[in-house]
Amino acid sequence: MKNILFYFDIISPYAWLAAMKAPDFAKQYKINLEWKPVLFAGLLKAYQNLGPAEIPAKREYTIKDTMRWALYEGLKYQGPPKHPFNPLKALRFLTAIEDPQSLAQLSHRLLHAIWAEGLDPTQENNLLRLAQEKNLDGKKILAQAQSQEIKERLSQNTQEAVRQKVFGVPSFVVDHEVFWGHDRMLHLAAYLKGKLNIDQEKFKTILIRPRGIDRKEINPQNLLKN
Amino acid sequence: MKNILFYFDIISPYAWLAAMKAPDFAKQYKINLEWKPVLFAGLLKAYQNLGPAEIPAKREYTIKDTMRWALYEGLKYQGPPKHPFNPLKALRFLTAIEDPQSLAQLSHRLLHAIWAEGLDPTQENNLLRLAQEKNLDGKKILAQAQSQEIKERLSQNTQEAVRQKVFGVPSFVVDHEVFWGHDRMLHLAAYLKGKLNIDQEKFKTILIRPRGIDRKEINPQNLLKN
Repeated sequence: MKNILFYFDIISPYAWLAAMKAPDFAKQYKINLEWKPVLFAGLLKAYQNLGPAEIPAKREYTIKDTMRWALYEGLKYQGPPKHPFNPLKALRFLTAIEDPQSLAQLSHRLLHAIWAEGLDPTQENNLLRLAQEKNLDGKKILAQAQSQEIKERLSQNTQEAVRQKVFGVPSFVVDHEVFWGHDRMLHLAAYLKGKLNIDQEKFKTILIRPRGIDRKEINPQNLLKN
Repeated sequence: MKNILFYFDIISPYAWLAAMKAPDFAKQYKINLEWKPVLFAGLLKAYQNLGPAEIPAKREYTIKDTMRWALYEGLKYQGPPKHPFNPLKALRFLTAIEDPQSLAQLSHRLLHAIWAEGLDPTQENNLLRLAQEKNLDGKKILAQAQSQEIKERLSQNTQEAVRQKVFGVPSFVVDHEVFWGHDRMLHLAAYLKGKLNIDQEKFKTILIRPRGIDRKEINPQNLLKN
């Protein structure tokens, strides 16, 4: 059974959208999805990139886009009471779950609770309640989550994502190929059916293609000159 | 007939992908597509955002993603000899075309030439050749393109896009609603069929939702602390 890494952060509504499809997707394509909590802020920092919530027009668009996807896919949409929120406690909580299936199930449940039901994931009691729902020992997980080992594991998972050239969430990685975004699950599906193998030689040729200009030279302040 | 603004910059392979679908899309949904060349670099500057070609992992991903889309949609993919390139001359050339239908046709042809055939759009003779193909007076357009009027028109179109909260290309705008990306034409289609009207009151409630944290507080350098 092929293993596919599924990098996500609960802060992303697109990770929620991907997670809602993930179990059926894994069954349909007979693959194993390895759920990997990572810190999206860590990816942004690694690439010196801005998140969608940091550019006002893009933040607004992201909310609309998420609401549209929810309508399009027949999902209830609520979103958390505050956003962005600090995802660290919840990400560590997930990271502390050793059994991969339990990790997948609680991650799925938590993403649904945050984005469809409006749960605040920064509250310990909410995490404990969801763990109990899934017959997990929340108090034990919580204690583990505060250990140095788990803090380091979450950090390492994030660094591992960066090494694999993951820059956003959700991302799927298989055969060193990255598929970014819940909206690229259709590419991933085609790839798994053997129908989306790009010409790797051509890719390499294009990758080393020279730059023709740097942006400072086409600064819009010069739009009226030359 | 409903008018839909189609903001694009020839520098974007996603604008190419959108443009290839645009004529059939307009026919199918009985809408008028108003092609609007804008300077993508101007949008990035306005939002202090980075373009995908400015983050190495994202640049690499964008090339792969484009190659995958080309496979997925049965298009030949080549890409320009240099990228990014200076799009100003070509964008002004397009902006100087007064007739909307000719503008649409030449824009479509130019995007195809760059991305499917590998044409260098910074060369005047290439622009002249394509104009001739479309029975347009390339020399006259070229003279116009160098006028202050056209430089200002391109700048104004870019500013108009920003006022409409467009932050990327391609973007479609209808009823003050932005649809960003060739991959959101499926949302636009559903919207035009009256099936994707989000709850605007709920949208406003979510928009004014408080922020729970700022990213500096979850700096990954603090990942191992607290």
